[in-house]
Amino acid sequence: MSPKITTELLRQLRQVMKSPKYVQEPVQAYIVPSGDAHQSEYIAPCDCRRAFISGFDGSAGTAIITEQHAAMWTDGRYFLQAAHQMDNNWTLMKMGLKNTPTQEDWLVSVLPEGSKVGVDPFIIPADQWKRMSKALRSAGHDLVPVKENLIDTIWTDCPQRPCKPLITLDLSYTGDSWRDKIVALRSKMAERKVVWFVVTALDEVAWLFNLRGSDVEYNPVFFAYAVIGLNTIRLFIDGDRMMDPAVREHLQLDSTLEPEFKIQVMPYGSILSELQAIGAGLLPKEKVWLSDKASYALTEAIPKAYRYLTPYTPICIAKAVKNTSETEGMRRAHIKDAVALCELFNWLEKEVVPKGTVTEIIAADKAEEFRSQQKDFVELSFATISSTGPNGAIIHYKPVPETNRTLSVNEIYLLDSGAQYKDGTTDVTRTMHFGTPSAYEKECFTYVLKGHIAVSAAIFPNGTKGHLLDSFARSALWDSGLDYLHGTGHGVGSFLNVHEGPCGISYKTFADEPLEAGMIVSDEPGYYEDGSFGIRIENVVLVIPAETKYNFKNRGSLTFEPLTLVPIQMKMIDVNLLTQKECNWVNDYHQKCREVIGAELERQGRHEALRWLIRETEPLIRVQ
Amino acid sequence: MSPKITTELLRQLRQVMKSPKYVQEPVQAYIVPSGDAHQSEYIAPCDCRRAFISGFDGSAGTAIITEQHAAMWTDGRYFLQAAHQMDNNWTLMKMGLKNTPTQEDWLVSVLPEGSKVGVDPFIIPADQWKRMSKALRSAGHDLVPVKENLIDTIWTDCPQRPCKPLITLDLSYTGDSWRDKIVALRSKMAERKVVWFVVTALDEVAWLFNLRGSDVEYNPVFFAYAVIGLNTIRLFIDGDRMMDPAVREHLQLDSTLEPEFKIQVMPYGSILSELQAIGAGLLPKEKVWLSDKASYALTEAIPKAYRYLTPYTPICIAKAVKNTSETEGMRRAHIKDAVALCELFNWLEKEVVPKGTVTEIIAADKAEEFRSQQKDFVELSFATISSTGPNGAIIHYKPVPETNRTLSVNEIYLLDSGAQYKDGTTDVTRTMHFGTPSAYEKECFTYVLKGHIAVSAAIFPNGTKGHLLDSFARSALWDSGLDYLHGTGHGVGSFLNVHEGPCGISYKTFADEPLEAGMIVSDEPGYYEDGSFGIRIENVVLVIPAETKYNFKNRGSLTFEPLTLVPIQMKMIDVNLLTQKECNWVNDYHQKCREVIGAELERQGRHEALRWLIRETEPLIRVQ
Repeated sequence: MSPKITTELLRQLRQVMKSPKYVQEPVQAYIVPSGDAHQSEYIAPCDCRRAFISGFDGSAGTAIITEQHAAMWTDGRYFLQAAHQMDNNWTLMKMGLKNTPTQEDWLVSVLPEGSKVGVDPFIIPADQWKRMSKALRSAGHDLVPVKENLIDTIWTDCPQRPCKPLITLDLSYTGDSWRDKIVALRSKMAERKVVWFVVTALDEVAWLFNLRGSDVEYNPVFFAYAVIGLNTIRLFIDGDRMMDPAVREHLQLDSTLEPEFKIQVMPYGSILSELQAIGAGLLPKEKVWLSDKASYALTEAIPKAYRYLTPYTPICIAKAVKNTSETEGMRRAHIKDAVALCELFNWLEKEVVPKGTVTEIIAADKAEEFRSQQKDFVELSFATISSTGPNGAIIHYKPVPETNRTLSVNEIYLLDSGAQYKDGTTDVTRTMHFGTPSAYEKECFTYVLKGHIAVSAAIFPNGTKGHLLDSFARSALWDSGLDYLHGTGHGVGSFLNVHEGPCGISYKTFADEPLEAGMIVSDEPGYYEDGSFGIRIENVVLVIPAETKYNFKNRGSLTFEPLTLVPIQMKMIDVNLLTQKECNWVNDYHQKCREVIGAELERQGRHEALRWLIRETEPLIRVQ
Repeated sequence: MSPKITTELLRQLRQVMKSPKYVQEPVQAYIVPSGDAHQSEYIAPCDCRRAFISGFDGSAGTAIITEQHAAMWTDGRYFLQAAHQMDNNWTLMKMGLKNTPTQEDWLVSVLPEGSKVGVDPFIIPADQWKRMSKALRSAGHDLVPVKENLIDTIWTDCPQRPCKPLITLDLSYTGDSWRDKIVALRSKMAERKVVWFVVTALDEVAWLFNLRGSDVEYNPVFFAYAVIGLNTIRLFIDGDRMMDPAVREHLQLDSTLEPEFKIQVMPYGSILSELQAIGAGLLPKEKVWLSDKASYALTEAIPKAYRYLTPYTPICIAKAVKNTSETEGMRRAHIKDAVALCELFNWLEKEVVPKGTVTEIIAADKAEEFRSQQKDFVELSFATISSTGPNGAIIHYKPVPETNRTLSVNEIYLLDSGAQYKDGTTDVTRTMHFGTPSAYEKECFTYVLKGHIAVSAAIFPNGTKGHLLDSFARSALWDSGLDYLHGTGHGVGSFLNVHEGPCGISYKTFADEPLEAGMIVSDEPGYYEDGSFGIRIENVVLVIPAETKYNFKNRGSLTFEPLTLVPIQMKMIDVNLLTQKECNWVNDYHQKCREVIGAELERQGRHEALRWLIRETEPLIRVQ
């Protein structure tokens, strides 16, 4: 990996930072955040501006360029990668280390008095703007919005913003029509005395209209905004996508509809002026609802007194609670996904053990190939983490030719992968050994398994927040002095983003919403030994009501049902470290894998994979 | 309980709210918070202003009086009590219920335009002032400080502020001299580039100077402030307490000392003017450190740009980590406390079973009597919760003649009690049955015990915050659909307040500091069945390093050692619900009680109680 040479680019950028063509007054610093205008986790190539200017293409990082300096803030996952990808025009700011200054402190230390710091107001979330602006102002500087993105002005070969065809989802997939969803949203708006709701997150637009796209890799979303009034619906979207008869039919664009369900289609780029017009026409006490993570530009369009900001929007919360059609779809998707993985693992055992020719990349490609054979397969849901031996300890590893390792009978193999099917999104991790694992490897694996079971089998009262379950996943590791440095679970979308709010299971998240029946999260404890191996066991699980002997204060209880049905490698389990209850859990789980996935393998005529499944789901026996 | 008649008092208060003698401009509303000028949990009679004006004397509540209304906000623990104690001049505002307005919203709804809302700036913490002031200002009203407390102006028979003699603690109790503590504090101040530190919490003043008092019941503190500079020490305290030769000797008031350790004694009432003088004389970049819970009056004395506010002060954090002398003192105190409880329980078994003449109050008094026989006993550490049958379900119950119940062989008895000894503070809850408990009572008790053990035996990495352990205490209850609606543990002072920050174990507390070896907390899960019974099992436990098989990232692990050594009634345990590990925990715990407390009972010649202890610590045997 050789660094990107950025001398000329930085020279050009510094020129436009002073050019009256682009800035009202020269800016002494320019901030280039990671995100796009929708605060997406995964972004389109045209939005990879920070990677363009610096060379560093990790998923998190903020660049700040001044007349003299160019600095990059990123976290521990990316220290090495950023150092390799950036040339010596750049200073790496290692976040999380004690002596690393914050962006604000650094700016204050390097800027001449009374400086202007520019940023694209569409890229920076309103809450970040507020914090940064306050810090700069108190030091005598100003944060200023620069309307035209300055990176775009020098990015001559910038790829076009994707504008791919849409997929319409009918009721059999979504359970609720977009009209039902609009009605429900309006009732939430009425409760809060809000007259407009602005949809800025791409997955929220997609969910609301029962549409999917492919503008962003791995996330079936499309570039759009929506503004919902009590009697109006405006969809801001570009391209000829609205010419597609299926889409017109789905949105009933050509039907005679009650006016409150008539969708006005407007250009993507007109959102700001439309919001400004709405902002200017508000009556006293009328409120406009936005996420507090919406961009500064859109938030500012509504005068402060009229804004109603919340960390989670009503769409985010409604989307998290899956209805019967969605959970049934998720079940189907996970069955297909399990079929693909049974095929893969059976193939790996045949290939790795005798031949030793399978690399991490080949294994990842093979997994994709098996998945793509399944009905309604659309694409992967994230970049496959296919890692063997020491690469398994790199939590966000993705194999590339420079790091690609060959699977062998001497190393642990960790595969974290998932797919988008038209009926659901999957995300599963299995850790396997193709030879004979050491006692220590088995011990660690078994602690991780105990943590996985502790969460999966937990019973807890309605209203419990996911972060209260996080320690259950760690307890067995803690008992032996071990731990893992990531959260235990994240929300999963239904044929949508593989990471979604507002629920999760993590020691870090205290802003999570309570778990409710119908929510879907991952359960993925792990253990990582730097330079040696990584272990993770991940199922996607559905929150379901639990039957309990008593029912305190009539609150009701919840538990989880695994949607992922892929055998957990028994060779890796030290059965004597399991309690009888845990042992029963494994056997019941494997029994269910055998029944459900076995039937589907049979139906698909995949007999060799079926034999593999039967072998891998024999009951464990615990020696008393 | 008949309500207090407040018509005349309210008339008088409304008069002074308009009197130019007390207010610059009339105030249309006056807020009467619960606390004192030090934000103490327990307050002196002279500070019970809210109880005086309303009749309601629960531990939490805020009164607001306007020209037309008088309203009281309190939480679920006190709805019944407040309703009984207040006459119909008052409206009860039930906090936590959906339709109850916040104080701010209510004020905005009832006040005429452009109103002034008064409050004593010494009683309201700065953070509360800020929130309330902002809300009122945005609705066109003003929160104004009223220098003279308006309740005090009409409270003709207000008791005097207590000013009782001080106790000096020598090194054998404190481990560190007050000079050492000042040196350590100054080094923390230097780290943060702070030139003054203002000590406002009473237990922090007491801890810093190794002094104790008895101005507030149950809390061995005294009314004082302190201001520590880099070269000066000022102690603000009233009365002739500083004339006591022992105190003068302890503080070296008459010795020739290096100037930086010379304590300047000043009147309690001069704190504000002294702080204002300090505030006026600060150089640029000099900072003054205060708790963010310090009063508005003191916080305002320091200009905003010079304030350094933190939720926990360095004294609060240092005080929480007990040194060897303190932990040894706590151990001694808990041994004496256990002796007293063995005597009590032995006496109860003899009295309750055949005679049935013991009431909750008699039992509480007897417990105090046995404790007072122990060396260095000072007073109780809180009002004894002595509750039988349905009274046990009232979590903050205190027996009074109207509710006093007789202990019997048919009901569960819950005793939550503790004492202040010169060497330590205790807090212990035991739940017992003097007849034959039902299978259901045993089942519930055993779940609570499992939760108690899960916390007590937990092993967790250094740096873990207590709230991450809270679910361990609930897991066994949750499995059966049960729960309890309070936190699991609180910090405990060393011959200081029985509740202290900054650590604890609760699903609610996310601002807690990480647990460290030397911290002391309670472990007290429970289960309460309204109208029937209450169960709680509480030990005070010390955080100690844990030996583990591995040591991930060299972080080290922690666990707890019980300081409380009082048998857990075996009759209440359904042993078949325990795992072998839990059964071993109980047996090991009882073995330690027998050894340690047995030896002390022997030494004190308390042979009957010793026989009781031996009987109550026989090993449990689990049927496989």
